[in-house]
Amino acid sequence: MAKFALETIRHSASHLMAAAILELYPDVKFDIGPSTEDGFYYDFDFGTTKLTTEDLEKIEAKMTEIADKKLPFERIELSREEALKLLSEKKQNFKVERLADIPEGEAISFYRCGKFIDLCRGPHVDNTGDIGAFKLTSIAGSYYRGKESNPMLTRIYGTAFADKKELKAYLMQIEEAKKRDHRRLGKDLDLFSISETVGPGLVLWHPRGGFIRNTLETFWRKEHYENGYDLLYTPHIGRSNLWETSGHLGFYKDSMYSPMEIDEIDYFAKPMNCPFHIEVYKSRVRSYRELPCRWAELGTVYRYEKSGVLHGLMRVRGFTQDDAHIICTPEQIESEIEDVLNFCLHIWKTFQFKEIKAYLSTRPEKAVGDPARWEQAQKSLVNAIEKSGLAYEVDEGGGAFYGPKIDLKVKDAIGREWQTSTIQFDFNLPERFQINYIGEDGQRHQPYMVHRALFGSLERFFGILIEHFAGAFPAWLAPEQIRMIPITEKQHEYCLNATRELKKAGFRVECDTRSESMGAKIKDARMQRVPFMAVVGEKEMQSNTFAIRSRREDQLGQMDLATFMKKLQNEVDNKL
Amino acid sequence: MAKFALETIRHSASHLMAAAILELYPDVKFDIGPSTEDGFYYDFDFGTTKLTTEDLEKIEAKMTEIADKKLPFERIELSREEALKLLSEKKQNFKVERLADIPEGEAISFYRCGKFIDLCRGPHVDNTGDIGAFKLTSIAGSYYRGKESNPMLTRIYGTAFADKKELKAYLMQIEEAKKRDHRRLGKDLDLFSISETVGPGLVLWHPRGGFIRNTLETFWRKEHYENGYDLLYTPHIGRSNLWETSGHLGFYKDSMYSPMEIDEIDYFAKPMNCPFHIEVYKSRVRSYRELPCRWAELGTVYRYEKSGVLHGLMRVRGFTQDDAHIICTPEQIESEIEDVLNFCLHIWKTFQFKEIKAYLSTRPEKAVGDPARWEQAQKSLVNAIEKSGLAYEVDEGGGAFYGPKIDLKVKDAIGREWQTSTIQFDFNLPERFQINYIGEDGQRHQPYMVHRALFGSLERFFGILIEHFAGAFPAWLAPEQIRMIPITEKQHEYCLNATRELKKAGFRVECDTRSESMGAKIKDARMQRVPFMAVVGEKEMQSNTFAIRSRREDQLGQMDLATFMKKLQNEVDNKL
Repeated sequence: MAKFALETIRHSASHLMAAAILELYPDVKFDIGPSTEDGFYYDFDFGTTKLTTEDLEKIEAKMTEIADKKLPFERIELSREEALKLLSEKKQNFKVERLADIPEGEAISFYRCGKFIDLCRGPHVDNTGDIGAFKLTSIAGSYYRGKESNPMLTRIYGTAFADKKELKAYLMQIEEAKKRDHRRLGKDLDLFSISETVGPGLVLWHPRGGFIRNTLETFWRKEHYENGYDLLYTPHIGRSNLWETSGHLGFYKDSMYSPMEIDEIDYFAKPMNCPFHIEVYKSRVRSYRELPCRWAELGTVYRYEKSGVLHGLMRVRGFTQDDAHIICTPEQIESEIEDVLNFCLHIWKTFQFKEIKAYLSTRPEKAVGDPARWEQAQKSLVNAIEKSGLAYEVDEGGGAFYGPKIDLKVKDAIGREWQTSTIQFDFNLPERFQINYIGEDGQRHQPYMVHRALFGSLERFFGILIEHFAGAFPAWLAPEQIRMIPITEKQHEYCLNATRELKKAGFRVECDTRSESMGAKIKDARMQRVPFMAVVGEKEMQSNTFAIRSRREDQLGQMDLATFMKKLQNEVDNKL
Repeated sequence: MAKFALETIRHSASHLMAAAILELYPDVKFDIGPSTEDGFYYDFDFGTTKLTTEDLEKIEAKMTEIADKKLPFERIELSREEALKLLSEKKQNFKVERLADIPEGEAISFYRCGKFIDLCRGPHVDNTGDIGAFKLTSIAGSYYRGKESNPMLTRIYGTAFADKKELKAYLMQIEEAKKRDHRRLGKDLDLFSISETVGPGLVLWHPRGGFIRNTLETFWRKEHYENGYDLLYTPHIGRSNLWETSGHLGFYKDSMYSPMEIDEIDYFAKPMNCPFHIEVYKSRVRSYRELPCRWAELGTVYRYEKSGVLHGLMRVRGFTQDDAHIICTPEQIESEIEDVLNFCLHIWKTFQFKEIKAYLSTRPEKAVGDPARWEQAQKSLVNAIEKSGLAYEVDEGGGAFYGPKIDLKVKDAIGREWQTSTIQFDFNLPERFQINYIGEDGQRHQPYMVHRALFGSLERFFGILIEHFAGAFPAWLAPEQIRMIPITEKQHEYCLNATRELKKAGFRVECDTRSESMGAKIKDARMQRVPFMAVVGEKEMQSNTFAIRSRREDQLGQMDLATFMKKLQNEVDNKL
C-alpha cells in the first residue's frame, strides 16, 4: 500500500509543475490544476508567450530540481478578505474568480510549496519528494471554464505515479496504445473512414471493415438464434408521439437530433430501439404462454455528441447497438438474467478477452416502479453474478431512475479496461406504454422488461477489437487470410492455381504477382496483418508445397495445400 | 387479334356506364371517364344522392340492357361556341371547365351513344355490342381534378374485356390476389405491422417476418461474396453539402425529408446510398488494378411518398435497398453488365419466378455524359440481354438523363407482373464527385459507374414473396418448418423429445401440446402455412414413427425421424 493515494500524488505533481512554471515564467497566470484519471493537468495563461512541446523538458527539469529539495506542502486557511487580497496582489484574476465560486461559510484554504501558493482544497503529499515519478505528456489549448467565448488558456498535461516502475509501465502502455490506435490502423488497413463531407461521427465501413462487421454480425445472429432470441427490424425514424410516450422527448431531447417534418408531423431519428420493440409487442394481445419474448436487433441509432468528444469509432454520432429486449413474467426473471450474463461471458471469451469485471448499480433515491420489483430485479442480478464467479463492485444507489443494472468491463491485451455489455432493467417503459400480458389467471399483468447489449455498439466494439488485436485479427475475422507470394514470375501460374483452389474451398486469399522483391512482398503482407503467407520459389514448386509463414508463429515450414488448409480451417473453426 | 384495343373497349365501357347512369339518375353531372391499366372509371356528381355498392348491380343491369341494343358510338365535331352551348344547356359545369382546357385550334369532338353525349377525344368501339364483357367493381370518393379544396365526386370503377372468358380469368385473379394480399397475410401470419404511432409507411418486422428477412439477407450476402462483391455499411444521414454535390437537393428534394440540424449544419435522411459509396471510393487514390469495385449494401433509405399512395410493404416511406455500385474501366463494362444480369436471373430463379422480361430504356434528348459512353453502355445492355435470351422491349429515349438502364419485370404465381431488378448506368455522379482512377498509363481517368438492385427493396420483395407463395413459404424460408402434433397427452413426451432432436439438428419446430383436438391443431398448422406436420398417436409411438403431412403433397405416410429429417434437409438445401 502506497503512502498516498494516486490522486493525491497527481494533484501534488500538478502543483509541482505550477511551481516550476512560476520560476521559469514569473508573469504566468494560474487557473486550476486537478488530477485526472490518467494523471493531471494545469491551465495557465502565458500572455503572448507560446509554449511548445520542447519547453516541456525544461519544465520537467525544473520540477525534478524542486522535487529533490523535498519542499513541504503547507496548508494555510485565510478569511475571504485575506484570500482576495493575496490573489489580487499576485494579479491572479482567474483565481479571484474561482475564489468567488466558494460558497459563503466554507473554509478557504491555500497550499504553499516553495514560492508557489495556490487556492486549493487539498489534500497533498507531505513534501515534493513524495511525488514518486512524473512525466509531462502534452500541451493543448483550453477555454477558460470550457466556454468558447472565454479566453484560450494553455493546458499542460502530465502524469505521476508512486514510483518509476509504475510510470514506466504506464508510458509503455501509452506507447503500445499509440501503435494500436484504431484510427491509424483503420486507415493503414483500409477498414473504415469518417468523412467531413458525410459528417463528423458518422462511420463509412470500407470493404475490409465491412467484411469484419459482416462476420461479427453473422456470428452474433447465429448465436442469438441458438440462444432462443428472435430478430426484429425496425425503422430509423419515428413520430414525435412515440418519443413523447417513451419520455425521450422529456428526458433525452439534448441527445436527439432536431425533428424532420413529414405531412406536418414531426419525426425524430431514433436514439434508441426500445419504443419500436414495444410497438411490436403491442401489435396484438400477448399471453403468458409466449413469454419470454427475447427480441434482438442490430439497430442503428443516432445521438448528438459534441464535436469535441467525438473519437474515431469509440465515440460517434451514429452507431449500431446489438440491442435486445427481454419481456417476461416475474417467475422468469432469475433464469433470464442468468442466461444473459452467461451469453455475455461466452461472447467475450470468443473474442479472447479473459479478464471481465461486473459493476452492479442499485436503486437511487428518485426511482420509478414498485420497490418489491426493484428488490427482485437486484436479487436476480446479484445471483447471476455470483453464480458466474465474476469479480464485481456495487455502486449503491447508482442505478438509473428506471431500474438496476449490471455493466461489464473487459480488459484488453494491453491491460486497458473497456465498458461494454449492459444488462438493464426498465420499470419505466412498460408503465408508460401500458404493456401487459394475460396471465394463467386470465388477468392482465405488467411484464418485466430488460434491455441488454453484448458488444455495446458495433462501431465501438470494432474499435476495441482493432486495438485489442493490434489489427492482427484472428483468421476467422481477417478479411484476407492468406497472401500467396511467388518469388519470381515462374511461380505465378502455380500460385494462381493454388489461389483458385483456396478460394473454391471458401478461404480468403490474394496472390501478389507484382514485380517486387520477395522481401518487399513479405513486408507488405506483414503490414496488412495477413495471418498466413505462402511463399513459393523453385524448391516449393518442385516439391508441390508452400513455405508457410504465420503472423503468429513465423516460419511453419513447407507443407502441401491440403495440410495447410486443414491447419487454417482448424483456426477458423475454433476462432483461434 | 381482337377487333378493338383493350383501352378502346374499356373507354367505351366507361361511356356505356355513363349512359346507364344518365337513364337511372337524370340529374347527374359528369366529369371524365378514362380507361386505366385494369379497367376504367367515371367521376360523377350525384348531388345529394349517395350511391352504395348495392347500386352497382342496378347500373350493371342497365348497362347490359343498352349493350344488347348495339347502339352505335357516333363522333360529332362542334365549334367551341356550339360545344359550349350544348354543355351549358345540359348544365354540365365540369364539362364546361374541361372544354376550356382544350387548346385553341384543336378539334372539339363529342361521342354520342343513345341519349348520352360526351365531350371526348375518342376512339370508341363501333357499337355497345362490341364491349365484350364488363363488371363494375367499386365506388370511391375523388376530388374534382385531384385537389382537396375542390368538391368531392363519386368515382365508379369497373373493368371490361373483349370476352367473358377473359373477364372471368381477371376476376378470378383479383379474387386470388385478395386471398394472397400481403397485408392480410402479414397480420394472419404475424410477419410485420405498420403502426400509426411509429408512422405510416414505416415497417416493423415481427419475429417471423424478421426470420424470413434474415434468411433472405444471409442468402443475399453469401451470394454477393461468392460473386465477387464487397459489402459496405454507411450511415442513414449525411450533411447537406453531400446532397448538394450529388445533385439530390437540386433534383430530388421533393422526395427527401426536411433537414435535421446538428451544430448548425443541415443533415438529411438518405434517399439513396450512392453518395456514401462514392465517399468510400474517394477515401484514397484508386488504381486501375483494383477495379472493378463491386460494392453492395443493404442500405435503408427514406423517401417521401404521399400518404394516399402508401400500400402495405409495396409502397413505403422507409425501405432497405439491396443496392450495389459497380465502378469499373470502359474495358470491363461488357462483362460486368453480363454478370449482373446473370446474377439477377439466378436470384429470381431461386425464388421460383420463371417468367422474366427485360425493359431497356435508352438516351433521352436531355442527357448528361459523353454520347460515346452512352453508346457503349447501351451496347453492353443489349448484348447482355441478348446473351441471356430474355424477351425484352426497348423504350427509345426513355432513360434517365444520367444513363441508360435495364429494368426486369417478373411474373408471380397468379400471373401478375412486378417490376423488380434494375441495372442503371450513371454518367452524372462520377462527374459531379470528380471520381477517377490512375490508369495503366499513369493518367487519371473517369470510371464507369453502375447502380443495381436485385430484389429492389427488401420490403417490397417480401410483399411480392408473400403474395407469390400465398404465405406458404418454401421450407428454407419458413419461420416454422415442422409442427409436431401429439393426438393425446400420452404422446407429449415422445413429441417433445423429437422436437428437441429436430431443434438440435437445426430445424425450426414447434410442438402443439395444447389440449385441443387433433383436427383443431391441424387446422391451426395449416392456417400458419407450416410446411410439415408430424402427427403422433398411439400407433406412431408404438412403431417409433411420425405421420407426416406436407402442406404441398398432403399425407406422406409414416416415417421415422431420420428419414423425415433427410427429406426436409433436401428441401432446404435445394430451396424447393
